[in-house]
Formats: sequence, structure tokens, C-alpha cells
Amino acid sequence: MSAIPETIPRRGGAREARRAARSAELPDHLKPVRPGMNGGRYKPLSEADVLKIHHAALDALETIGFADAPQSGIDAMVKMGAKLTDSGRLLFPRALVEDTVANAARHFVLHGQDPKYDMEPWGDKVYFGTAGAAVHMVDAKTGAYRESTTQDLYNIARVVDTLEHLHFYQRSVVCRDLPLPEEMDFNTTYACVSGTTKHVGASWVAPEHLEQSLKMLHMIAGGEDKWRERPFVSQSNCFVVPPMKFAFDACKCLEVAVRGGMPVLLLSAGQAGATAPASLAAALVQETAECLAGLVYVNAIKPKAPAMFGTWCFVSDLRTGAMSGGSPEQALLSAASAQISRYYDLTGGTASGMTDSKVPDAQCGMERAYNHALVGNAGANLIYESAGMMASLMGFSLESLLIDNDLIGAVQRTIRGIEVTDESISLDTMRQVCLEGPGHYLGSDQTLQLMQRDYIYPTLGDRSSPNQWEERGRPSLVDRASTKLEGILSTHYPTHIPQHIDEAIRAQFPVRLPREAMRAG
Amino acid sequence: MSAIPETIPRRGGAREARRAARSAELPDHLKPVRPGMNGGRYKPLSEADVLKIHHAALDALETIGFADAPQSGIDAMVKMGAKLTDSGRLLFPRALVEDTVANAARHFVLHGQDPKYDMEPWGDKVYFGTAGAAVHMVDAKTGAYRESTTQDLYNIARVVDTLEHLHFYQRSVVCRDLPLPEEMDFNTTYACVSGTTKHVGASWVAPEHLEQSLKMLHMIAGGEDKWRERPFVSQSNCFVVPPMKFAFDACKCLEVAVRGGMPVLLLSAGQAGATAPASLAAALVQETAECLAGLVYVNAIKPKAPAMFGTWCFVSDLRTGAMSGGSPEQALLSAASAQISRYYDLTGGTASGMTDSKVPDAQCGMERAYNHALVGNAGANLIYESAGMMASLMGFSLESLLIDNDLIGAVQRTIRGIEVTDESISLDTMRQVCLEGPGHYLGSDQTLQLMQRDYIYPTLGDRSSPNQWEERGRPSLVDRASTKLEGILSTHYPTHIPQHIDEAIRAQFPVRLPREAMRAG
Repeated sequence: MSAIPETIPRRGGAREARRAARSAELPDHLKPVRPGMNGGRYKPLSEADVLKIHHAALDALETIGFADAPQSGIDAMVKMGAKLTDSGRLLFPRALVEDTVANAARHFVLHGQDPKYDMEPWGDKVYFGTAGAAVHMVDAKTGAYRESTTQDLYNIARVVDTLEHLHFYQRSVVCRDLPLPEEMDFNTTYACVSGTTKHVGASWVAPEHLEQSLKMLHMIAGGEDKWRERPFVSQSNCFVVPPMKFAFDACKCLEVAVRGGMPVLLLSAGQAGATAPASLAAALVQETAECLAGLVYVNAIKPKAPAMFGTWCFVSDLRTGAMSGGSPEQALLSAASAQISRYYDLTGGTASGMTDSKVPDAQCGMERAYNHALVGNAGANLIYESAGMMASLMGFSLESLLIDNDLIGAVQRTIRGIEVTDESISLDTMRQVCLEGPGHYLGSDQTLQLMQRDYIYPTLGDRSSPNQWEERGRPSLVDRASTKLEGILSTHYPTHIPQHIDEAIRAQFPVRLPREAMRAG
Repeated sequence: MSAIPETIPRRGGAREARRAARSAELPDHLKPVRPGMNGGRYKPLSEADVLKIHHAALDALETIGFADAPQSGIDAMVKMGAKLTDSGRLLFPRALVEDTVANAARHFVLHGQDPKYDMEPWGDKVYFGTAGAAVHMVDAKTGAYRESTTQDLYNIARVVDTLEHLHFYQRSVVCRDLPLPEEMDFNTTYACVSGTTKHVGASWVAPEHLEQSLKMLHMIAGGEDKWRERPFVSQSNCFVVPPMKFAFDACKCLEVAVRGGMPVLLLSAGQAGATAPASLAAALVQETAECLAGLVYVNAIKPKAPAMFGTWCFVSDLRTGAMSGGSPEQALLSAASAQISRYYDLTGGTASGMTDSKVPDAQCGMERAYNHALVGNAGANLIYESAGMMASLMGFSLESLLIDNDLIGAVQRTIRGIEVTDESISLDTMRQVCLEGPGHYLGSDQTLQLMQRDYIYPTLGDRSSPNQWEERGRPSLVDRASTKLEGILSTHYPTHIPQHIDEAIRAQFPVRLPREAMRAG
């Protein structure tokens, strides 16, 4: 066969028309993709499967329950109907869990500092963002790993701020230049919210650190009431130490977030074969049970407080016990978890795209892509860890972040799907081309109309021919990303926080990012 | 959050047990994946969408029809009920098409020379293989392109012969060292069937070339009757020049294949926005109409002759008119086409994984992977072009072929899905671990049972930590592939065709591959 049509006429007229068509900027609603595309066409689980997992999770909560709840949580949850056993485990009767799900907050907006980045992550809508917490930055060209810093965290925020297909920024790297936990927690939040106006996710190791950050967030919002109207930072909270134990400090942070009007990502990060069962179905049961327990906790502290159902079940390479973020089993677990949160009509958050590769190579590309294609098309509402993460979350690559933006755009295009309408399947164009026209569709009205609305183009991906690529000196993808990255880092310094607010923050709190690091030099 | 559990106990006992478990070779039926996994959990089209496309295709066949049918085809198809217009177009009444679909061959085996490679590509079963026709071999390390040769074609066959997740071998590259078409056609078949015992696909530009190849295939099979019992080569046939014109020479070859007992892949390779409509839905309509016309042709020549429904709709980058094999629109078209052939209960063949990148980099990995993840999970029966192809089918990389074998294994694991059974969701293991056991699942009986049955491991993909990778000198994926490739090429010389048969073939036909190129030097 000849795979490439050999004789496509290349008439100047059609070319000119295409050139004119693509020079016109499209309004947002006509772009090929937009934030919050509707997924759900991939269903790894049947409806019966989801129900089985749900019932097994209720059984686990009722008969195994949780160890290690803090006294404040025990008091609140027992009041709602939980039962404390003699051995100190908290059991959750079915009715308590079912009532909690029925009455929990749903369909709440996750705000950006800029309202144009507000997200509505419910139903089948899909948003992609970063997460963490890598401890290294990766040199994409050499593969060298070095410790990550506050400056890196801020730089990643600035880059995410410019990328069309990254919809939120959860802190990606740990500020290893700040060994004091209270400084690290505060500066993590500061660097993120200074670097982007998109919704931010962060985490805190102690409740008093969160209280300090909330004070800063009130200042940025223009007062506590304004913050509570549009909270633009959510808390990523590992309230559970899988299997089935509460994490004391995280639970205390959870209580502060709930009372402070901050949405909470209830993050159950078990690892199948290590801290969760090796059976993928049983791992989903445990994840579901754990997130439901977190939901009970949140609603016991404050009914209808906004919480995301964070079923982040990781995968072990069972030969070594180490995490394998890029595995196909990971894609299945994350995609299935989207169906489970959808069953509860809760905002679901999960992880996807966590390659095991150390550099942005073909392994990285493929592992991210089969995960994103399936998790995105399953309709996960909030897809964390989706860009830049290397080595199963151990490192972060800025070049990969740019490359992954292309990938997410492409995956969003697949989520959008194919519109089959009377207009889109009309035979008029085919009839004209075959019976009257030039015998091809290159310059047809339909082609010109659809070339920007229905087709997405990569910003870094190269579609030139081998000859054209050769003539340009065989530029590598990483080099192309690196060039683009330098342009962003040297020019994009967000200024949405007014200088007097920033000065007031610096006067009151231990900001460690120098002002000169936050403007063009 | 702490993504990686910090304190997984690493007890010698659990490690030892895992080591013992994985040293046992699994029987085929217990392996994590096998050829012909059942897809179908991803449905880009609704049932109503499929019906709309079907009806529009019937309209197109009835009212637009095909130009340029050879007289032999006109005679055969008019006899069945097709109508020739004054302008020479052949129109296909609905009833003719519907009767053809109802009576066409379905559920036929595609044979390998070795029966263990027989494929049963129907229902939702999914097989992956190569295709062509690249005109260059790619140096994966430098990005240099050079013309492909007969030796390359044979070498690729040998490598495919060793790869677990490549289920058939369609000729991947053009023998550009053989400028005479008859020599090229014959030697293409010879190199493929000599290099692998898996099912082979090939193509021919003239009917007499195919007749010559058939004589050789009879000799290899042990006689024409044996060949007809188990035809192990199928013809990839571009019977249509989209839009809606028959290709004269290809149709003549099709007639010879059908009469010679060779299964035919009815390959409609339109390109959306160029030779097919830019509207993805309309492109599917045209593809469907074209393959249905091919099916009428085949069945008019010989009722129930085996034919595959080859809806290979390619995609144009509408900015340039060039093909974009790696695009997300391609993933949608190929995945949707799987649903259409499933609707007809015909064996569907489509293309996936045709990256636009020139080298096996992150772009290559991601483009192949989101295509494979979606096309595979859609349940396409025969997925062509799935490995090794570069630059939108312009080049072939052997290193990529090895890397893509890993990818396909991983995608097959996602196709297998998650078994939710009473056993797999049992709380026994969780209860024991949480209430009585060590608080983790590393050494549990379930983990040991499932580590080889439920989890797949890459052969080239690296899952080591940054430190471990650093200690090994940061080996690149392409270098790892290259090392493995050298091992295969220097040792794997298939000997399934007995020497006396090969000598008889060489005595009778213009074999251009020297015998010394076909054994270890």
C-alpha cells in the first residue's frame, strides 16, 4: 500500500485560504479544546463492578475501621455515629457513611486568583494540573539530579501560569533550601500564589503553619471574608496512612483547613502491593473506604465543607517494592477511581502521568500518554501530577513540563471526541468534491472552517518531514523545549499581587524568596 | 503530601518470597497479557452515532458511488445488483450492501506459519502488528535517514519474530535496493516469510507479481491445498483512491488474491482534510462507504472470501496539508473505526501509533501511546503500524520497534482491565493485614500470587531510582534498545523454511537476499 496519498494537489489558492483562516484568532468557545472537557467514554469498570467496590468499601469501614484517630476527630465522628472499639479502632456504620455522602458538598467551584481560571470540577469535566512533591530538579539534557529550591517552585509556578493546558498548580517540588518546616510550609504557599493566578494546591505539616499561611491568603484576598468567598488555594491532605490508619498531624491540619474555608483534597495515597492490596480491585476498595472515612471526618468537623475525593492509589513494582508511577496498572487504578467518585457525584481527584523514567525520553512520553489518555477519557475531574514529574515523583523537569503541555492538549482533544451531527456527517461536501469539484478537500469551505475549531496543533511537537527537519539541523525536542523555557523564565514575572501587599506580607512573615528573584533582571 | 510511603518495611523474608515467586515461569494462560485481549471499554461513538455513520455511508454508496472500476469489477458487481451510471460511476443500492455485509466471511483465522501465532481477530479481540511502507531506516542515535533495503526488511522480520507483543508482521519498509517492481514485490514477500513464522501482510503492484509470490507460498506450505488450508500471508490492498474511486491495478491484484485464497485487507487510506472530509464524522462516513464498496467487490468475485475491513483514515495537518500520524484526531478516527467494524461484526483493521517525530523521543512515545491506549481499548481487531514507524510512516527505527514492544505490552495490560470478583475484592487480606498482620501487603500470599499474573514488567523501560540510574552511568533508553537489538540481530536467524525448499525457491525465482545474509556470520 501507499500510506501517503501521492498526488494531493497543492494549489496556491487553497494554501492562501488556509493561511488566512489560521491567522484569525478564535474566541475561547470555538477553540479545539478548553478547560473542563467532558470525559467518560472510557469505562474500565462496569456499573456492577463499581457497586461491588462500593459495598466492599462500606463493609471495610464497618468491620475493619480506622486506627489512630486524634481525640478531636474521635469526638466529632462518634457524635455523628461512629463507634470506637476497645482496641481503639473507629468503625463507621453504613448509615453514617451513606448519609455523609448524601449530604456532602458537591459542585463547588475551585477558584483562581484570576476568575478566568475558575474550575467547575464535577460531573465528567476534566482538568489537568501539577502536584508533588519532588525533591529534585532534573537537567533534561544531561540527566543530572540536584536538590530543588524555593526559586524552582516559584519558577515552575511562572511557567504553569503561561501554559494553556495546565489548569491548576499544585506545589510540585519541595523547598529543600528551607530546612525549617515552618519556613518551608509558609514559603511554599507564598511561592505558588505569587507565581500564578491559577488555582493553587499546597500542603502543610503542622496546623500552626497553615494558620500562618491563611493570614497571608487573607491579605492577598483583601480580607478573610473575600478569601472565604473565593478560596483560591486548596489543601492536599494525606489524612490517612494506608492501610486504614489516620495520620495525626495531617488530621489536625485538615481541621484547620475545614474551619478556615479552604477546600481539602482527601488524599489516600496507598501503594498497591505495599500499603494497599496487590489485587487492583481490592486496592480500589481500600482507597474508596479511606476517602469515605476522610469525608466523614470533614463533614463531622463542618457539614458541607468542600472536599475532593482523592483516590490516588499508586502501584508497586512487585519485584522491588518500589513505586511504579508509569505502569499500566496505575492507569487502570486512576481511571477506575474516576468512575467511583462519579458514582458518588463527588469531585474526584487522582494522579496520572507519573513516569518512571529519569529524563523526558520515549519511555516518559509513552508512560505519561497512556495514563493521561485513559484517566482523562475516564472523566477524572482533577488530574494531578500530570506534567513535569520524573522518576515516579522523585524529580521535576521544566522541559518536560512544556512537552507535557502539548500532550495534555492532545489528550483533551481526544476527550472532546467526534461530534456526529446532521451537519458534520452531511454528504454535501463529499458529493460536491466527488461529482463536481477538484477531487480533494484541501480548499473546501468545510476544511477552512474546521482547521482551527476541530484540529489542535502542538507547540513543540515537530510535524515536519525528515528533509525539512534535516535542513534545520535535526533539532531535538528537549532543545526546542529548552529554548522556549528560557524565553518564558526571562520574561514572565506575574504582578497580580500589588507591591504594597507584598511588602506587608514581607514585613509580617519570613518570606525567603528575594524580591529581585521575582522580576526581570 | 508524601507521595512515596516513607516506611515500607523491607524484610528479608518478603523479598526472598517475591524472588522465588518471580523465578517460576508462568504458563501462557496465566501471563498478565496474551494476544487477543478483549477491548471495547472505550467507546468514542455512541450507538446512535454509529448508526448515523452507517446510514450516511449507505447514502453515499447509493447516490455518489465509485468511479474508475475495472471492467471485470463492473461485470461482477453489476451482476450482483450494482448500477452503472452514464458518467461511468458504479452505484451500490442499499440492499446490495446490506446483503453483502450479512453474507460476508466473518470470524476467520489469520494463520501464522507456526500455528502458535494464529490469530482470531473478531469480536473485541485486539492484535498489534507492523505495517508500512517506510522508505527510510532511521539511525535512532543520530537521527540520520537512509534508504531502506531488502536486508532491512528481513532484519525487521527477524526482530518481530522475537517480540512477545507484536502479533503479526506486515512489511514495514520498501526494498529500495530493488528498483524493478516485480523483483521488489517478490522479494518483499520472500524476506517477510523467511524472517518470521508470525502472520505476514504484504502488497503487490501488479497481479502477475502476486501470482509469482503465490507459487512460492505454495512451495513453503507444502502444496497449494496446504496453503489454502492455512494461508499465512494476507494482502494489504489499496483498492480505493479516496474519495470514492477504484484503483485499477490494486483491484486486479485483489481479484488474484481472492481467487488464490489469500485474505485481503481492504485498505481505505483517505486523509481527513485532503482526500477525505475534514469533518471527522464525515471522514468516517467516507471510509465506511469505501470499505463497504470493497467488500461488495470481494464478495462479487467470490462469496465469503476472507476480507478485513480496513478503515485507515489518516489525518492532515491542515496548516500544511501533510499527514499527521501522531495527532489526537488520528486516535479518534482509528478508535471510532473499531466501533464501526464491530457494528458489522467484521474483522476490523486500522492504524495506530504513527508518530510525526523523526526519532524515538518523548514526542514519539506520547503520540504512539495515546493512540494505542485509545485504539486498543476501543477493541480494534488488527492494529497496524503499531511499532517502529517514524515521521508519519516515512521512516523505520529498529530501536523504536523494541521500545514499542514494551508500550504495546503495557497497553495490552490496560485492555485486560481490572477483574472485580468476589475473590479479587475479598476483605480477608485487608482484614488480616490491618487487624493481625504486619500493617503492609509486601509479603502477603495475595501479593505473591498476583505479582506475575496481574502485573506486567517492561523489558527496556527503566524503573530504577535516580541514584541507581546514576550509578549505572545514566544509560539512555535508545542505548539500552540498541544493545538488545544487536543481541537479537546477531543470533536470531529463523530456520523454519527447510533448506531444500529455500534452494528450490532460489532455483525458480529471483531471490535477491543472499543466503549468507540469512545466517549468523
